[in-house]
Amino acid sequence: MAQDKKLVEAITSMEEDFAQWYTDVVKKAELIEYSSIRGCMILRPLGYAIWENIQKQLDADFKATGVENVYMPMFIPESLLQKEKDHVEGFAPEVAWVTHGGGEALQERMCVRPTSETLFCDFYSKIIQSHRDLPKLYNQWCSVVRWEKTTRPFLRSMEFLWQEGHTAHATAEEAEERTIQMLNVYADFCERVLAIPMIKGRKSEKEKFAGAHATYTIEALMHDGKALQSGTSHNFGDGFARAFGIQYTDKNNTLQYVHQTSWGMSTRIIGAIIMVHGDDSGLVLPPRIAPTQIMIIPINQNKEGVLDKAFELRDKLSAFKVKVDASEKSPGWKFSEQEMRGIPIRIEIGPKDIEANQAVIVRRDTREKIVVSLDQIVEKAGEVLETMQQDMLNRARAHRDSHTYSATNMDEFTKIIEEKPGFIKAMWCQDEACEKEIKDRTGATSRCMPFEQEHIADTCVCCGKPATTMAYWGKAY
Amino acid sequence: MAQDKKLVEAITSMEEDFAQWYTDVVKKAELIEYSSIRGCMILRPLGYAIWENIQKQLDADFKATGVENVYMPMFIPESLLQKEKDHVEGFAPEVAWVTHGGGEALQERMCVRPTSETLFCDFYSKIIQSHRDLPKLYNQWCSVVRWEKTTRPFLRSMEFLWQEGHTAHATAEEAEERTIQMLNVYADFCERVLAIPMIKGRKSEKEKFAGAHATYTIEALMHDGKALQSGTSHNFGDGFARAFGIQYTDKNNTLQYVHQTSWGMSTRIIGAIIMVHGDDSGLVLPPRIAPTQIMIIPINQNKEGVLDKAFELRDKLSAFKVKVDASEKSPGWKFSEQEMRGIPIRIEIGPKDIEANQAVIVRRDTREKIVVSLDQIVEKAGEVLETMQQDMLNRARAHRDSHTYSATNMDEFTKIIEEKPGFIKAMWCQDEACEKEIKDRTGATSRCMPFEQEHIADTCVCCGKPATTMAYWGKAY
Repeated sequence: MAQDKKLVEAITSMEEDFAQWYTDVVKKAELIEYSSIRGCMILRPLGYAIWENIQKQLDADFKATGVENVYMPMFIPESLLQKEKDHVEGFAPEVAWVTHGGGEALQERMCVRPTSETLFCDFYSKIIQSHRDLPKLYNQWCSVVRWEKTTRPFLRSMEFLWQEGHTAHATAEEAEERTIQMLNVYADFCERVLAIPMIKGRKSEKEKFAGAHATYTIEALMHDGKALQSGTSHNFGDGFARAFGIQYTDKNNTLQYVHQTSWGMSTRIIGAIIMVHGDDSGLVLPPRIAPTQIMIIPINQNKEGVLDKAFELRDKLSAFKVKVDASEKSPGWKFSEQEMRGIPIRIEIGPKDIEANQAVIVRRDTREKIVVSLDQIVEKAGEVLETMQQDMLNRARAHRDSHTYSATNMDEFTKIIEEKPGFIKAMWCQDEACEKEIKDRTGATSRCMPFEQEHIADTCVCCGKPATTMAYWGKAY
Repeated sequence: MAQDKKLVEAITSMEEDFAQWYTDVVKKAELIEYSSIRGCMILRPLGYAIWENIQKQLDADFKATGVENVYMPMFIPESLLQKEKDHVEGFAPEVAWVTHGGGEALQERMCVRPTSETLFCDFYSKIIQSHRDLPKLYNQWCSVVRWEKTTRPFLRSMEFLWQEGHTAHATAEEAEERTIQMLNVYADFCERVLAIPMIKGRKSEKEKFAGAHATYTIEALMHDGKALQSGTSHNFGDGFARAFGIQYTDKNNTLQYVHQTSWGMSTRIIGAIIMVHGDDSGLVLPPRIAPTQIMIIPINQNKEGVLDKAFELRDKLSAFKVKVDASEKSPGWKFSEQEMRGIPIRIEIGPKDIEANQAVIVRRDTREKIVVSLDQIVEKAGEVLETMQQDMLNRARAHRDSHTYSATNMDEFTKIIEEKPGFIKAMWCQDEACEKEIKDRTGATSRCMPFEQEHIADTCVCCGKPATTMAYWGKAY
């Protein structure tokens, strides 16, 4: 056996230091490498392949609702960014400015897009004239730049990959319907493909998107009890349309403003996959998003016939994303690497297995070992992957539910935050002062006012005045 | 019939003004919209869908050779760009500089990537240690920015989409092999999918990539007789490795420099599709790249049963990319739109056809009308698409061959350029002075020294001294 060139070093345990565990996994599973550019990450093949799978499946979901892809410029002239007052206030402080090009100073500086509402609005003002031009349902996959002070892989980086959908509609009702529709697309995708259950709801005025009439969000709970905003969908009403002059003539030949939405999901969601499903051996990828679903690891591979059988098995399993690890490392190292990289199942096959016409399937999540006849292995592998996908969702939901609490006053609220972090359901008067006080006292923010409301109490958890909504609260990434 | 909201206006004829024809097609087929940002284009749904199809098929071709995708930052700090002398000289004059971020002036300015050799080199210097880490075969799909003075849709814009592959190898031989391999991937893709035949060859020293040891190119001939460089593949030798210190320990434990390649194809190739296949009615898309392959156009669609039959036909043809144009426009307008957008075939179906259990297939390229029984329409549509794909390649090749000339002296050369533009095959001494003189006198540049050499004469077409190569020459986009 050749000397293994790289040890699978132990990673910090989750319970000991969750933040360090996260960084270790991201680095040792080779999802990301830090670049020489402050706050910018390199997506390595495994990290990018996960994003490619997200893209592929989400893009199909978008297109099924009539969305078309386009590509807009990455630069926004300062004057264009400034057209919508709230929007520029929200984004101007965190953009990167291009001031020189082609060896000369620019007459007007341009920022690298932090988001593209202003570009889409400018575009829509040119191509929308009549009600026949509506709706416009456009999306783009691209990278955006936001000048973050502190950065963390996937969760917060200066440049990140995302998609941003931008739609224009004839009526306010249609825009609201599309906003909710896309939120549902995100939530369904996360549940079905990523095995992550989501709380769907509306953001508070304080937490909504700069320039939006209403922002809706999906919120997930990480293993450490912190929340992660995983996707947002905004209804802009006709605010941007008025600022940019996007008008159409309706059937009565009257000029009307369009109503717009935008919605986005980014590589941040990969952080959620890591922090919802991972364990002390590394990444655990849901089978439906895993770039490699099955790793075949030959035992005693130098014995005659073992490697041949392993490759034969690979060909038999070609309906799945399957590989053979035929490198010169020991099986133990290969197991560790497969576990670190979160590959859903491994199949061990050695001389004795071959003699018995069998192989051993090992689940990444439970480590359950299943001895299977080679005659039934295709069927069985499919079953195990499907079961694992469902089990992962069930476990994530159980974890979230067991870490979701109710509070009716600030003492209860504070105690929960200190002792057993998770989601806190609490009534709220919707006054921003209470939201601020809760944040100052506990570090928790309002995550959303969920569509599924519950009546926890009559009064606001903070001020005691009559409550108008139930909200989810929590510390968040 | 409702008033058609938008006329399919006549476009300039190709023979009258090819440049204007091109601009008209790009705009009226709705491939591109000009943006408010100087030199930046918006890729509209049809333009982007063509790029998506290119991406999908080319990406699969890359992966079949072992390439993996990654994503690198879009910014390059000035000090990093400067590490390789020739490279920085080639690119520094045409980059966009970010000088401010997050409200503050940067300590070191960063350019928006014009290409990412320097970033990949920096990355490789961190992750390559041993011969076991080689080869690295990475690619990324992204946009790049080059500060162009004059821009044209697809052909030359400030920001454009592309892929850039960057590989690192243990030996010079392996790097050269990969350089040629990827050039062949491009040429095969263009021929098989885009129906565009390519001349493969090596660029002159003057025309090679900044920092490369050798640049290979694929060159196509447009309808107007001008050449278009359609993809390039560079062998860097160990030049970048020495500048960036990318070393590995070989099997004898000796430190060695890696040998590198890079290769790219961009949205520019969409310009080639337009200019090779288009005609005076607009775009003509090869079936294998067309986002919509078949448009079903109902005739007399308000007659009972016609629309039902059209949608039934669509479902029957679901193995293809098929749509029904059920809008309230007249069939004539629908034909014009289908032609303008280059949809390979349309199927006309009206009450009389339904009575006769037939439909009419019309080819976009030849306008041939084929009456087909509805019982055989799936098979026949597939045949017509396949035939059209082959015919388009044959026509493009015949056009190129009939516009490829030989010259043995400058009188002949000049006469050809003036009278019948196309490729000129001519012998060359490889002296840059002759290359320059030819350009000054005729406007033609050396396109490549083709792999398939022919002996046209003994002496250089320009200086009359002994020739060392045959080269293709021509005016180029």
